[in-house]
Amino acid sequence: MAWDAWGDPAKATELSPTLLALVQDLFKVSADDVPSVARDEVRLTPSALTADDLAALEAVVGTEHVTTADDQRLPRAGGKSTLDLLRRRSSAEQHAPDVVVAPGSDDEVLRLLNICTERRLAVVPFGGGTSVVGGLDPLAGGLRGVVSLDLARFDTLEALDETDLMATLGAGLSGPRAEQLLAARGYELGHYPQSFRYATIGGFAATRSSGQDSAGYGRFDDMVRGLRVVTPRGVLTVGRAGAKNAAGPDLRQLFLGSEGVFSIITAVTVRVHRLPETKVYEAWRFPDFATGAAALRAVAQAGTGPTVLRLSDETETSLNLATVEDAGAGAESGGCLAITAFEGPAELVEVRHAATRRLLERHGGTSLGPEKGEQWAEHRFDGPYLRDPLLANGALVETLETATRWSNLLGLKQAVTDAVTAGFAAVDSPALVLCHISHVYDTGASLYFTIAGGQRGDAIEQWSAIKRSVNDALMAHDGAITHHHAVGADHRDWMTDEIGAIGVDVLRAVKTALDPAGILNPGKLLP
Amino acid sequence: MAWDAWGDPAKATELSPTLLALVQDLFKVSADDVPSVARDEVRLTPSALTADDLAALEAVVGTEHVTTADDQRLPRAGGKSTLDLLRRRSSAEQHAPDVVVAPGSDDEVLRLLNICTERRLAVVPFGGGTSVVGGLDPLAGGLRGVVSLDLARFDTLEALDETDLMATLGAGLSGPRAEQLLAARGYELGHYPQSFRYATIGGFAATRSSGQDSAGYGRFDDMVRGLRVVTPRGVLTVGRAGAKNAAGPDLRQLFLGSEGVFSIITAVTVRVHRLPETKVYEAWRFPDFATGAAALRAVAQAGTGPTVLRLSDETETSLNLATVEDAGAGAESGGCLAITAFEGPAELVEVRHAATRRLLERHGGTSLGPEKGEQWAEHRFDGPYLRDPLLANGALVETLETATRWSNLLGLKQAVTDAVTAGFAAVDSPALVLCHISHVYDTGASLYFTIAGGQRGDAIEQWSAIKRSVNDALMAHDGAITHHHAVGADHRDWMTDEIGAIGVDVLRAVKTALDPAGILNPGKLLP
Repeated sequence: MAWDAWGDPAKATELSPTLLALVQDLFKVSADDVPSVARDEVRLTPSALTADDLAALEAVVGTEHVTTADDQRLPRAGGKSTLDLLRRRSSAEQHAPDVVVAPGSDDEVLRLLNICTERRLAVVPFGGGTSVVGGLDPLAGGLRGVVSLDLARFDTLEALDETDLMATLGAGLSGPRAEQLLAARGYELGHYPQSFRYATIGGFAATRSSGQDSAGYGRFDDMVRGLRVVTPRGVLTVGRAGAKNAAGPDLRQLFLGSEGVFSIITAVTVRVHRLPETKVYEAWRFPDFATGAAALRAVAQAGTGPTVLRLSDETETSLNLATVEDAGAGAESGGCLAITAFEGPAELVEVRHAATRRLLERHGGTSLGPEKGEQWAEHRFDGPYLRDPLLANGALVETLETATRWSNLLGLKQAVTDAVTAGFAAVDSPALVLCHISHVYDTGASLYFTIAGGQRGDAIEQWSAIKRSVNDALMAHDGAITHHHAVGADHRDWMTDEIGAIGVDVLRAVKTALDPAGILNPGKLLP
Repeated sequence: MAWDAWGDPAKATELSPTLLALVQDLFKVSADDVPSVARDEVRLTPSALTADDLAALEAVVGTEHVTTADDQRLPRAGGKSTLDLLRRRSSAEQHAPDVVVAPGSDDEVLRLLNICTERRLAVVPFGGGTSVVGGLDPLAGGLRGVVSLDLARFDTLEALDETDLMATLGAGLSGPRAEQLLAARGYELGHYPQSFRYATIGGFAATRSSGQDSAGYGRFDDMVRGLRVVTPRGVLTVGRAGAKNAAGPDLRQLFLGSEGVFSIITAVTVRVHRLPETKVYEAWRFPDFATGAAALRAVAQAGTGPTVLRLSDETETSLNLATVEDAGAGAESGGCLAITAFEGPAELVEVRHAATRRLLERHGGTSLGPEKGEQWAEHRFDGPYLRDPLLANGALVETLETATRWSNLLGLKQAVTDAVTAGFAAVDSPALVLCHISHVYDTGASLYFTIAGGQRGDAIEQWSAIKRSVNDALMAHDGAITHHHAVGADHRDWMTDEIGAIGVDVLRAVKTALDPAGILNPGKLLP
């Protein structure tokens, strides 16, 4: 990925004239006011590691897998949140990990953790580099330096059992590479978060990720049957027998979502499914968000089995920001756009589609046919490319997400919208707040917000203040601090509100048991 | 429940002449050789608590909720495993908790835990008293005495939200009482383990229970959205927003299955569903267990949506032990009997039934029509009543269960059968080993064994030896130490094999953080 932007530099895009004019007129901004830093101007903090440190690391993984080169450290300096991008673009002085190390086996990881414990070096695991919550911030936590532990060499399909429909995937496999290896055998994982093209299997597990097909294939944590993790205390495999059991608390759930603070995840055993025989899309229009949300609730609670089920609010529908090409061009129809998809054996797709259609119609939906659904699928990973030219032209753009029970959904949506609007108003900017539901459960759903306003002064400070007030609003209105972006550095101050002081103490106790020296990803997850 | 037998004394049953003859002839046993103890012969260990201890407990909950009376302590002396029943029946000297205390609020529970911490008293939470793994053994763990903490007063439907389909149930509600309260509002939980008539909501959560409708409504842990727990450190509510999220590890999963060693669960928030409009049963015959298991796997992996899906092996089918009345009478047909049920809105039941039928037929099943399914449903909770007259007539009878991935299922079944057969052969008894699959997952399934042989000498020693060899076989053949009976005292020695030494250390760290004095259910779960 580009060091200061999302994704493939070849796919970088410009704003359409319509959207550029809208941004300039509405937000009163200009590209001239936005700081930028060319890559060759960047001055990285020199590596704090000694020659002796490096020799010790090299003795484990070989010299070719240890580097302090700036061009390797800079891309691992952070993730892809707007804060990350603003940090990259606003100052020539950049902070980065002191060394990048790429182990090739569990044993090498364990030996590295031992060395880092002895030498008091922090370890930040690195997969696809797509964190949007500061999960990759190179924080030393009072230790002597920061090691970026790159999982790229854990890149194989270790096992696939076609009877059990279970596969063991190396933690460093990217989404596309994992799917490619499975597809060659006729199988699919079916986990498609927007970060899919870059994010890794280990990252999906560490962040309790959820993908766009979660209605049908579940969240990533639903897919996991086992994990192999390396802690400073040793290697642990959780989930031995491949079926649920009652042998005490489910330890898999303690490593899922642990964001590198308990262990380095090196392999994940997941359920897979046969490549779908059929895929059917259908788009729907609802008169308003409340009606659409009630329809989605009916489908989720009846369990009629769509693979994809999502609903854009009126603003998102009208701005059409879901696709890069048509962004800002306006929608053909008013109301709220919903997308459904159905995948699997043809005979099951047919009955699931029919049962879902009946419910959506009964709840006020009007079918728009397949085209808008297919269009959504084609462009489903492109959204993040829009943020870069928006930021460069003076807009302040970010996404954030939460989840709550159905009965609280509309109130929470309003509370977040109010907090964002007030935050921008405080610096004399209007705000656009777009929202969609993309993950549904029987008892609740996610809300995903795309937020835009004008940059005013120090955009890092500006966004940090807005984000704080949104997080406070989430806590006050019974929203989760995060639905699928995870905690990282950016949400950790709200974890005590989220899980209680006793809950935090429990996680700290686990941390201390596994990582007594506190080398693993300090400053993340735990407040 | 009867102090020395399963369930309602009014429902105690005798063996049919056929079954009695079978037991006597096959196992070479007689009721004359079986020890028995009348209730008025029982001499309970006197309470170890001082008047000062009792006054301190009474100051919290009131004198009417504290008792050391033998007739209250004896029914809380253990659960309902065969070991428990043999202990009750084989000796007049009985060990029991020193006092029974029934708090009425979270605050009272917290104050009791503080008193027990100060006075070094162990606390064994008591719900329905149905543990079959020694979860209720009154072990003091080196402390001064044992308090049986009865949750019976946590007996209300605290909340029901009809939009979210979520209910908060007091931990002391029995299965039937919880369903009655929900049914009055038009809803159902749908959790029907064989212990349903006595077991409680808190017990279901603490043991990670799974019910007979798990194919459709999920395991109990699938149903839970939140828990309120009282630890010696304070009250903690986990699962705030009602939808899944990515706010670190899912702490609900640390309290589910924690068997009273981390906390006292006082309330559980669960998803509920509307009372089903339709229920349809259909029984099937498969030529053999392997064919039937492959058919169940096809249904579980396709997700066609049966509520109940179970398969008896040839021996269980032929002995027909699933119902009390027909037990031992022989089956009409050979092969293996399978039961399916479908519940919900009529239109969904129809499509789910049709899709499931197609798969079962394609995989070698022959429909037997609805009757045997309806008959199974009618008698689904009666099985345990058969054990008591079998034990009294000299048979050694118990159930045990495990789970594994599909590809390992037949091998594991054989390994358990071999271990049981060898264990009985060692004391010169034939053995009957019946097995069924009653919980299916996409990647694996449970195996539930009903085992019978002849009592020889000290039946407690005899069964303990067989059980040890079965547990070792489970570990050697990649079976879970338990699928839904939990760990308790009886499986704890295998927990290091099950979750690894590091996994055990993690659970111990959590225990120490929440219960530093170690008062909560000592001797259970953690090896």
